[in-house]
Parts: sequence; C-alpha cells; structure tokens
Amino acid sequence: MDAEEFRRRGKEMIDYVAEYLENVEQRPVYPDLEPGYLRSLIPSEAPLEPESYEDIMKDMERVIMPGITHWHSPYFFAYFPAASSYPAMLADMLSTAIGCIGFSWAASPACTELETVMLDWLGKMLQLPESFIAGTDGQGGGVIQGTASEATLMSLLAARCKAVRRVQTYTSDKSEVEIFSQLVAYTSEQAHSSVERAALIGGVMIRKVPTDSNYAVRGDSLKKMVEEDKAAGLIPFYVCATLGTTPSCAFDQITELGPICNGENMWMHIDAAYAGSAFICPEFRPLLNGIEFADSFNFNPHKWLLVNFDCSAMWVKKRTDIIGAFKMDPLYLKHENQESGGHWQIPLGRRFRSLKLWFVFRMYGLQGLQAHIRKQVALAKEFESLVRADKRFEICAEVVLGLVCFRLKGSNELNQNLLKKITNSREIHLVPCQLSGRFVLRFVICARTTESRHIQQAWQHITQLTFEGLQFQLLTIKY
Amino acid sequence: MDAEEFRRRGKEMIDYVAEYLENVEQRPVYPDLEPGYLRSLIPSEAPLEPESYEDIMKDMERVIMPGITHWHSPYFFAYFPAASSYPAMLADMLSTAIGCIGFSWAASPACTELETVMLDWLGKMLQLPESFIAGTDGQGGGVIQGTASEATLMSLLAARCKAVRRVQTYTSDKSEVEIFSQLVAYTSEQAHSSVERAALIGGVMIRKVPTDSNYAVRGDSLKKMVEEDKAAGLIPFYVCATLGTTPSCAFDQITELGPICNGENMWMHIDAAYAGSAFICPEFRPLLNGIEFADSFNFNPHKWLLVNFDCSAMWVKKRTDIIGAFKMDPLYLKHENQESGGHWQIPLGRRFRSLKLWFVFRMYGLQGLQAHIRKQVALAKEFESLVRADKRFEICAEVVLGLVCFRLKGSNELNQNLLKKITNSREIHLVPCQLSGRFVLRFVICARTTESRHIQQAWQHITQLTFEGLQFQLLTIKY
Repeated sequence: MDAEEFRRRGKEMIDYVAEYLENVEQRPVYPDLEPGYLRSLIPSEAPLEPESYEDIMKDMERVIMPGITHWHSPYFFAYFPAASSYPAMLADMLSTAIGCIGFSWAASPACTELETVMLDWLGKMLQLPESFIAGTDGQGGGVIQGTASEATLMSLLAARCKAVRRVQTYTSDKSEVEIFSQLVAYTSEQAHSSVERAALIGGVMIRKVPTDSNYAVRGDSLKKMVEEDKAAGLIPFYVCATLGTTPSCAFDQITELGPICNGENMWMHIDAAYAGSAFICPEFRPLLNGIEFADSFNFNPHKWLLVNFDCSAMWVKKRTDIIGAFKMDPLYLKHENQESGGHWQIPLGRRFRSLKLWFVFRMYGLQGLQAHIRKQVALAKEFESLVRADKRFEICAEVVLGLVCFRLKGSNELNQNLLKKITNSREIHLVPCQLSGRFVLRFVICARTTESRHIQQAWQHITQLTFEGLQFQLLTIKY
Repeated sequence: MDAEEFRRRGKEMIDYVAEYLENVEQRPVYPDLEPGYLRSLIPSEAPLEPESYEDIMKDMERVIMPGITHWHSPYFFAYFPAASSYPAMLADMLSTAIGCIGFSWAASPACTELETVMLDWLGKMLQLPESFIAGTDGQGGGVIQGTASEATLMSLLAARCKAVRRVQTYTSDKSEVEIFSQLVAYTSEQAHSSVERAALIGGVMIRKVPTDSNYAVRGDSLKKMVEEDKAAGLIPFYVCATLGTTPSCAFDQITELGPICNGENMWMHIDAAYAGSAFICPEFRPLLNGIEFADSFNFNPHKWLLVNFDCSAMWVKKRTDIIGAFKMDPLYLKHENQESGGHWQIPLGRRFRSLKLWFVFRMYGLQGLQAHIRKQVALAKEFESLVRADKRFEICAEVVLGLVCFRLKGSNELNQNLLKKITNSREIHLVPCQLSGRFVLRFVICARTTESRHIQQAWQHITQLTFEGLQFQLLTIKY
C-alpha cells in the first residue's frame, strides 16, 4: 500500500469509523457467542501473498464486529467508561504517523516536553498543590503511564527503594532482601486488584484495611494496623488510598490518612483512576482535599476525560524518587539532556500520548470538559431517582459521581438471576460487584453519547426483566 | 466536534499524515533545539473555551514538528527501527474507534480471540515449536505485551513464582522472601538494561555473564557461574538469553544454554526484540535453533515487522505459569469464560492491538514481509561494504541483520568527535555503543522507505565529516 492508496483507504476508514460510532447503539451491546468462536472463521495460517483490502474490510463485519462488546454504545453501563472523542482520535492518528519512541529527550524532544507541559496543564485544572507541578524548575511533575496499574506499581517500587535506603542509614548491616521481608504496604479492602498485584510483584506484604459503612478507609483503622505491625517488628512503608473505588466509587478519607502517612514516613499514593477526572469541576474538587499529604497521585484521563486509551496521568512530588529508583543508562541511551524525560515507567518505549491531551484540552476547553463530567453525573442521578422511586429496589452506596450501585431487595440469587437476564438480553450491559457480602449491580454512565432517553430505556428494560422474573417466581411457587 | 466534522477533519488528517510520511526525508532528521524549548511556545494553562481546529493544526508545524526526531525519515539510522506501515495505521484507527479495553474475554471477545489466533499465525511464520502454539487445546500460546521490557519482567516474575513453589515443596519452612534472597538470575553483560531492571523490580539478584569474542554468551560461561552460585548456597532460577543484542546484534548460543537451563530447572527466556522479525525468513531461522529449550520467547513486531508501536509478541510454553503467578479476580472481572484471555501482563487494560497484526499479515502476505526483511539486510550489507572499502574505518562486529557497528581506526575521542559532528549536522542520525571498551557507531537500517541512495548519501556524508575532521586535526597539529 503506497501513500496514494493510503489516502483513499484512510478516507474510507474515516467514514467507516464515523458510521460505526454514529450507529453503534443499533448493535447488540454484548456479543452472543461462545468462547473460541473466531478461530473457525479465519484461516489457521497467514497468507503467503497479499490479500485484497476489500476482503479484509468485509471480515470486519463477518469476524470482528460480532465479537465486540461495544464500549461506546450508549447502552453500555459496565466497568468504568473508556474515554473516546473525535479530537483524541485525530491526535492519535498523528501520534501513530510520527511514530517516535519517546524513551528519552533525544529520541523525541517534543514528545517528552509536551508531556510535561500537558501534565502541568492538567495538574492546574485539578488544582493540584504547586509541589506537583513541574514548571521550569519544580522538583515534582507529571508523567503519562499506560494504566493505573503501572502507576501503582511504580509508586510502590519507588517507595520500596526509599524505605530500604532509609532503613539502611540506621541499620547498615541489613540486606535489601531482609528489609523487603519487613516492609508492609496498606490499601483498602475495596481497592483495585492491581494494588495487591503490585505488592506481589514487589515482593512485599500487603494488608487490607477494613472500611467504614461508606466503604471508605478511615484514619483510625489505618493507625491501628500500623501500630500493630510496628509492634510486631514490621516496617510500614506505603499506603495506596483510593478516591472512587471500583466497586462503589467510595472515597478513602485522605485528610485523615495523610497525616498518618507523613508522620510514619509511609509513601502515600492516591489512586483516583476513575474519579480523578471529576476534580476539574470546583464542586467535586473537595473530594481531593488532602492531596497535599500525598507523594504521588494518579488518575486516568482515558476513563472519563475524553482521551482515548491509553493515557494514565501520574504526578509525583519528587521526580528523583521515581527516576532514582530505576535509572541505569547504557551508552545507546545516553545523551546530553539526560535529566529531561524517560525512566518514569516500566516500559522503556512509549507513544506520543500527550498529543491526545493537547487536542482534547484545546478542542473542548476546560468548560467543555466540565460540562461532560456534569452531564454524566446528572444522568447517574437521574438513574438513581428511578431506582429510588421503585420500592422493590434499593441503592447500595452513595451516588457521588457516575456510578449507581443498586439491587433488588432480596437474596443474592434473585439479583444474580436478574443480571443474567440483563446480560443475555444484550440490550444493555452491566457488571456486578460485592458490597458487604451482597451481590450488587453496578450501573455506570459510560459512553460520551449517553442521553437521558438511554437511561430511561435502560431502566424500563431492567424493570421489565424484573417483572418477568417475579412472574416466573410466582408461577414456580404456584405449581 | 461531531461526526460530520470528524469526517471532514479526519480526511484532512489522512492527507496530512500521507504528506508527512512522503516528504519526511526533506526535514532535518534531528531537531536543533535546547531542552525546554516547548514551554515558552504555548500557554501555561489549558484554555477555558474551545479553540479552533485550524489553530491547533497550525501549532503542529510551529510547536511540535521542530521538536521531532523523525524516526521514519530514511536518514534515521539510530537505536532500532520503529515499525510503520499504512495497513497498520489503518488498523490502529479501527482499534481506537472500537476502543474496547480488552482485560478479559467478556470485555471484548474478538480482541482476546484474534490476539491468540494472530500469535499462532505469527508463531507458525517463525516455525516455533508446536508447544508454543495455542491451537484449540494447547498449553502454550502467545500474548501481546506493550514492550519487550514488560515481557522480560513477566517471564522473570513467573519464573520467580515457580522457583518459590519448587523450593517450598522440599523446604516448606522457608518463607517466600527468604527464598527470594537466594534466587539468582543470569543474563549477558551485553543484554538490554530492562533485564537488570526486571530483576531489580522482582527483588532478586542478577549476574551478568561474560561474552565471547562475538559478544555472545556461551554455555561454559553460564555453567561456571551457575556452579559457583550453587556452591555458595544460592538458587539459580532464570536465564534471559538475547538473540540480537542492542549494542551489536550478537546472538547468545541458545543451543548451548538451553540444556543447562533445562538441567538446572532454570526458566529460559529468550529476548529477540529486534532480531525476531528476521526469523520469518528461512535463511535466518537457524539463529532461533534452540528455542525448543525455552520457557518463553519474545520479540517486537513493532520494531521490524511493519506493525506500529506498541506490539511486542510473547509466547510461553505453559500459559498457566504466567497466569497462575498473578491471578486474582474481583467480582467485577469475573465472567463465565474465565480462562480465555487476560492476566498475562502488568497492565490490566489493553488496546485491540491484534488488528494491526491481522491487517499487516494480510496486506503484505508472508512473502511481502520476508521481502522487507531481506531488503533491509541487503542495505546493511551495502553499508558494510562501503565501510570495509575505506581503510580508515573498521567493522566492529559481524553484520548479521540490519545493524552495522563501525568506527574510525583510532581513539575513542576521534569517534566521539565524529559522532558529535554527525549529530549536529542533522542530515543523518546515529547513536553509539560501547564494545570491549571501545566507542563504536551503530548504523541501523530503520525506515521502511530507506533505499540504496540513502545509504550511499549517508556514507558520503560520514566520510565528508571525517575528512573535515582529519583536516582540522592536521591544522591543530601544525599550529
């Protein structure tokens, strides 16, 4: 394919993409397939000779589309949103074309520098403390990671390195691994599985702190665990607090946790993967109060800020904490401007992801992005009202942002059956969570194009299935 | 921006991208800028209100392009290639539009399944042993990682987990961390820095095995180290062999290393990040002999197989080794087809990257891809001949694939000066490496569009700068 053909096929592809996104709500949101469906639809080996482009595009509808869970359907209410917007998609095309691998300043100055400046822009939009802003001479700053999992892992590893150095200053005979065996990390029992995974990778213990009735970690609970562990000769070194947990969008009380972390020399990382985007609105910014105590902070613009995956924003107060934990430069990576960029993440190579932020910030403006967040929160509130108005249902956690946790009053089995029917009907898509041992349905406003009518239809659909379910139960009881 | 405007802007962007790639050779390959250049060119905060698309695109030329190291210029000979092709770019647009986050089968069946089948296709193209092919019921199979660094880390962590379990079966009183402190990993002194990093992250010792005169690790050297370490009470558990090292494209002798690894219960990972693509050509496939001993194997189609970044292909013999090391499924990720997909990598979320493989394999065909590799190897040989014909220069390592290591006969300083002049002239771009204490220039065939005329011009340019340099030196001596 030469440039001429690319011009033609590329423009066709733009139309295909626009058509897909404009009409995605007409497709079943969840596929009706058995695992392994795809293998039999295509050859078992790559072709020796080139195939025609037409045949490949035909296979999009024959092979791929039937197996897609449509994350951008306005009837998709599962997991958390995967951000998508036209400006981000255009920027991504540019990023692919430039195709630089930004592992150092020299490998692509614009890539490294735009990233730092965009993270400053974003940090200011969130009103992060000055210490997280790079500016021209700050000690802190931001970096784009692929996912929140990577940000968590990086923060834990930096904290581990710092803790080892600290312990070794007063007990110089202790080996690194000996110290590892005493280190303890803490996170909420409601935290994302990636936190436990990070500890597993880093070879350190992790303790899950129990939460209060709002599923939030409080200062007292952490304090108690830390005291116990210290008494047992262990070394508390890291806390990962969550703002907006995955099950119920609960907010750990970071104003309580922060002083404990600072007082005990524990690294405080804040994971706001989903909720972080909302902090650009002044009315939600108080949820971030306490950030001043944190050593690192992360959230995913690729979840809720209209920037397509992947783009996870991470800030640290001291860049040297992260860079110092990993730096090792062979000659082929050395260059004159060593300190700018690179070495903040697990992968060495990285795409030019800040272009997406730049395009989205400028095409929407801060006000446009705020409007997006507010609209989606309002839609969640609308769904909450519908649930509350139906006495058969209950709301299971406070609705703060775009997630509504609800269930039928009654057994877990009843709710499992309802969810199974929802999934099988393929008209809307949800996933469950567990809260206090109860099986709960999570309803998240996801697609950028979700409107009130989709919420109303979704609710109608749920109640319809509920009614059928109850009828069936009555029948079963009768006979 | 609505779908209508996206259609218009998207088509303009296709033209912009095609124009950029067609004419990139006319741009200076390396930017002429000081670090920090970008910040002063743009505002210090995001705009409140939307800006016009025209203004943003104008800034591409004003702000971004001057700061780009053009990896796809045919005059770019640095690092290793970053793959790029039009079919991959089209597939990437689709992937962005579908925008699914493929962390489990349910989250996107097509994404999970196409990946497994494409890795089977690719495995067959490389003639991998049957044990690495997933098929419908294999124990092995492939997965796409973001980078080779991640693949190395995953393999090391899986090996660590397996080693701990094995040790605990005969010394059940040993704690995990105690075992960690005895584990030793091995890799070449020429290996990529990411291997050392992986060990650092995993909290295990790593030993660098000395290489022979071809910069390759031999069986005897590994055997000797392993024996020493066992005698010292340590537990050898992991070897990362490299096929095609970063400095000189050296090939560790895996037919010698394999039996040692298997005999000593050490996990053998093979990192062929750059060279792996060449193994689709029968004439280069013998370099992969010994793969049958390996537990895991990785190479980067995003380097040399025309698939845009990121796409790093990894195969394991036993999927359960990798999955088992990390699995922990909260309810919101559970679904009925639990075993298919997910949990093979550090990040939980992932893009639909196998589409790029599918498009590239089908649009080029195996023969088209082989032709690409062969052409680039021939260009490297052409450059090698030019160097060999000039008595002032020497070739510093065998030219097997697309990398030529060369230098001026004489001091390191002489060569450093030459490289500095090359870099500052901005007509071609190279990076150096160190081989046996000598400062060496690496010349790698990178861009898809590099032709013989670019090689000839590059060599002319290098000799011209050399001549100027020698003249200057003579002048300096004279006065």
